Amino acid sequence: MKNQAVQDLYGEWCSHCYGCGRLNEKGLQIKSFWEGETCVCRFVPRPHHTAIPGFVYGGLIASLVDCHSTGTAAAAAFRAAGAKAGTESDFRFVTASLHVDFLKPTPLGPEILLVAKPVEVKGKKVVVESEVLVQGVVCAKGRVVAVVAPDSMKMNKSS
Amino acid sequence: MKNQAVQDLYGEWCSHCYGCGRLNEKGLQIKSFWEGETCVCRFVPRPHHTAIPGFVYGGLIASLVDCHSTGTAAAAAFRAAGAKAGTESDFRFVTASLHVDFLKPTPLGPEILLVAKPVEVKGKKVVVESEVLVQGVVCAKGRVVAVVAPDSMKMNKSS
Repeated sequence: MKNQAVQDLYGEWCSHCYGCGRLNEKGLQIKSFWEGETCVCRFVPRPHHTAIPGFVYGGLIASLVDCHSTGTAAAAAFRAAGAKAGTESDFRFVTASLHVDFLKPTPLGPEILLVAKPVEVKGKKVVVESEVLVQGVVCAKGRVVAVVAPDSMKMNKSS
Repeated sequence: MKNQAVQDLYGEWCSHCYGCGRLNEKGLQIKSFWEGETCVCRFVPRPHHTAIPGFVYGGLIASLVDCHSTGTAAAAAFRAAGAKAGTESDFRFVTASLHVDFLKPTPLGPEILLVAKPVEVKGKKVVVESEVLVQGVVCAKGRVVAVVAPDSMKMNKSS
C-alpha cells in the first residue's frame, strides 16, 4: 500500500490551509510522508518564489517548515496514541512558535527536501526539529512548537 | 514629501523578492514605512491566505515578519550610516534567523498591521523585533536577525 501523505488524512474542515491544504487550489499543497523514523517533504519552488534572484524566498522556506512540522506533529501524536496508519485522524496541530535558522542561501531551481523529527511528544504539544536541504546541502534548520488546534479555531468543523 | 517605502529604495537587482519585491508581479509586494521611531507595514491578506478557515495562514505571517524586518533593518542601517532619506540605498539585508511566536489565532479578513523596531544595529547585523496586530490585538510577535546580503547572493547585481 502506498504511503499516504499526512495532510491527506486531515478532515475536510482543516484541509484549506494555504501551505498544505489539499482543498486550497491556490495554495502550495505540500505533502509530508513518514520514511523510517523521520517525516519528509519534497517541494519544487516556482520561479516566482525568489528572494534575491537565484535564491529561494525565506518566507517560502519558513512556510514549508511550518506546515511540514505541524504535519509531522499530527503524525507523531497519532502514532503515540496508537492509532492505525491510514485511518483518518482528528489530530490537527497549529504552530505556537516557529524558528528558522538560514544557514546559507538556498539555490532556486532544484527540489527542496525537508527532513523532520519529533523531538518531544507530550499530549497536546509536539516539538519538531527539521533540516531543509537542496542537493544534499543543509541550507536551513527549523524548530517548531506545535499544539493541538484549540476549539476556538474549529468554528467551521463539521467534517 | 510622501514618506517612501523602504522597498521602493532597493536597487533593481534585489527587488524581485516574492515577499517585498516591487518587480515580482506574483509576489506580496509588501511595503514598510517609518512612522516615528518604528517601522510599520500594513497588509490585507487574500481569502486564500487561510490556515484553518477563518484564520490567517501562519506562513504568511512569518513571511510578513521576515520581509518587513529585513526592510526595517535596511532602513535602520541606512539611518545609522547617516544617509539621507529618499536616496536610493545599497543596503540590502537578508534573514539569518527568524522567530515567530503565534500568541493567538489571527482572524482572516481585516488588515494586518506590523510594527517593527530595530533593537540592535551593529554594522552588518541588525536585530529587529516586531508585533503583528489585527484590530488592535497583538496576535504574534517576531524577532529577526538580519545581516547584509553576502556577495555570493549578488551574482545578478548590475543595478
